[in-house]
Amino acid sequence: MNTPATRLYHLALSPYCRKVRLVLGEKKIEVELVEERFWEAGSEIARRNPAGRVPVLRHEGRLMAESQAIVEYLDETVPNPPLMPTTALERYEVRRLCAWFDDKFNAEVTRPVMTERVWKKVMKTGYPDSREIKSGLKAIKDHMDYLASLLEGRKWLAGNQLTLADFTAAAHLSCLDYISDVDWDRSGVLRDWYATIKSRPCFRAVLADQVPGIPPAPHYAVLDF
Amino acid sequence: MNTPATRLYHLALSPYCRKVRLVLGEKKIEVELVEERFWEAGSEIARRNPAGRVPVLRHEGRLMAESQAIVEYLDETVPNPPLMPTTALERYEVRRLCAWFDDKFNAEVTRPVMTERVWKKVMKTGYPDSREIKSGLKAIKDHMDYLASLLEGRKWLAGNQLTLADFTAAAHLSCLDYISDVDWDRSGVLRDWYATIKSRPCFRAVLADQVPGIPPAPHYAVLDF
Ligand SMILES: N[C@@H](CCC(=O)N[C@@H](CS)C(=O)NCC(=O)O)C(=O)O
Ligand SMILES: N[C@@H](CCC(=O)N[C@@H](CS)C(=O)NCC(=O)O)C(=O)O
Repeated sequence: MNTPATRLYHLALSPYCRKVRLVLGEKKIEVELVEERFWEAGSEIARRNPAGRVPVLRHEGRLMAESQAIVEYLDETVPNPPLMPTTALERYEVRRLCAWFDDKFNAEVTRPVMTERVWKKVMKTGYPDSREIKSGLKAIKDHMDYLASLLEGRKWLAGNQLTLADFTAAAHLSCLDYISDVDWDRSGVLRDWYATIKSRPCFRAVLADQVPGIPPAPHYAVLDF
Repeated sequence: MNTPATRLYHLALSPYCRKVRLVLGEKKIEVELVEERFWEAGSEIARRNPAGRVPVLRHEGRLMAESQAIVEYLDETVPNPPLMPTTALERYEVRRLCAWFDDKFNAEVTRPVMTERVWKKVMKTGYPDSREIKSGLKAIKDHMDYLASLLEGRKWLAGNQLTLADFTAAAHLSCLDYISDVDWDRSGVLRDWYATIKSRPCFRAVLADQVPGIPPAPHYAVLDF
């Protein structure tokens, strides 16, 4: 009997889906990507995830939801390379930063900007509200300054080791970068951090994404941007 | 030199703060509670948490933020009683359910209902919008049915062991129960589960909460409700 292949039900420009894709890539777990247009009639998302959301990972014969729970599971079961540090205090810092991005940064930046510029177009639910975009682009400045301040004293976001926090951050920032909404001139350390993580093999598939009707920014896939 | 005492900057009716309080209580870590009225002039929240949110825990001389990161840290450093299972798959399920409550249940139920009924009053930011309350009270029904379906086959929410998932769920439900918005008649298994967790010593302080101007429901602190 074959183990069923790993499959990710996802959307290309969802930060939570990208986080899972990057971690799968880093762990060298092959994955089949299936686009899940959950707003369309006939979508079977509810059968796969009672929460009705992506990402959903089919892995080892099970359906798994919630990106942070998934990536912690992947890190615990496929230890190489380790994406969580060894001390409780360092792990706390990784989880704090993942939550920062998935909750606060998402609410203030990713969600408003992506909803107005991408999702309304893709889901055909109306025209962009420029106030929402403005408020997101105002908020990202403080967030970038905060990240830069962390990187002044650390090699990676949560410390001196590459962790889930870096992939969570890169997942959000890469969605915004696709639509040209990250001003990399704002911080040299942040640009260097992103250039380094973007050059990793796990990023290749993410940089190859093309959403019909929404072409990526010209520099999006350029490693030396 | 004394180790500085553990102190929680919190709000009584915040589910994230309650989650941390319950886990501290379960681990028998004494804590000094300090109410953090972050919306008032003179609040020093930004000095304590760059995200400007509660809970913030001062513990072992450090300031810690993000409830899930905090409770995982407490569980890793104070192993008794253990609130995470031993296998990766069971831990995945705990984290999935914590995320379910802190993200989905919060967005659909806790936040709209508490914002309209509690926070607008406490922060003096306007009158309740009854459509928001209605939508929250409609959504809670499906959520309760889903929890009940989990409890049909399990002793606790994530499996046969008491875990962080139960305290996360109880944190959200107890806030709503304070304002009488949980219809316990909807499910016998869910009521039994809540009665059991509510009887634990860690719940005592939470049941003693009194928010000025917002008296708790008559049954709120009754163990046999
Ligand atoms: N906490 C979830 C969040 C997932 C999420 O919000 N996914 C969005 C796409 S970016 C979604 O599916 N939204 C549809 C919905 O909520 O109905 C995770 O980390 O996986
Ligand atoms: N992800 C955070 C959420 C904390 C949160 O949303 N706290 C609310 C109170 S329930 C808050 O402080 N809101 C103020 C704000 O966001 O400005 C956690 O788990 O600690």
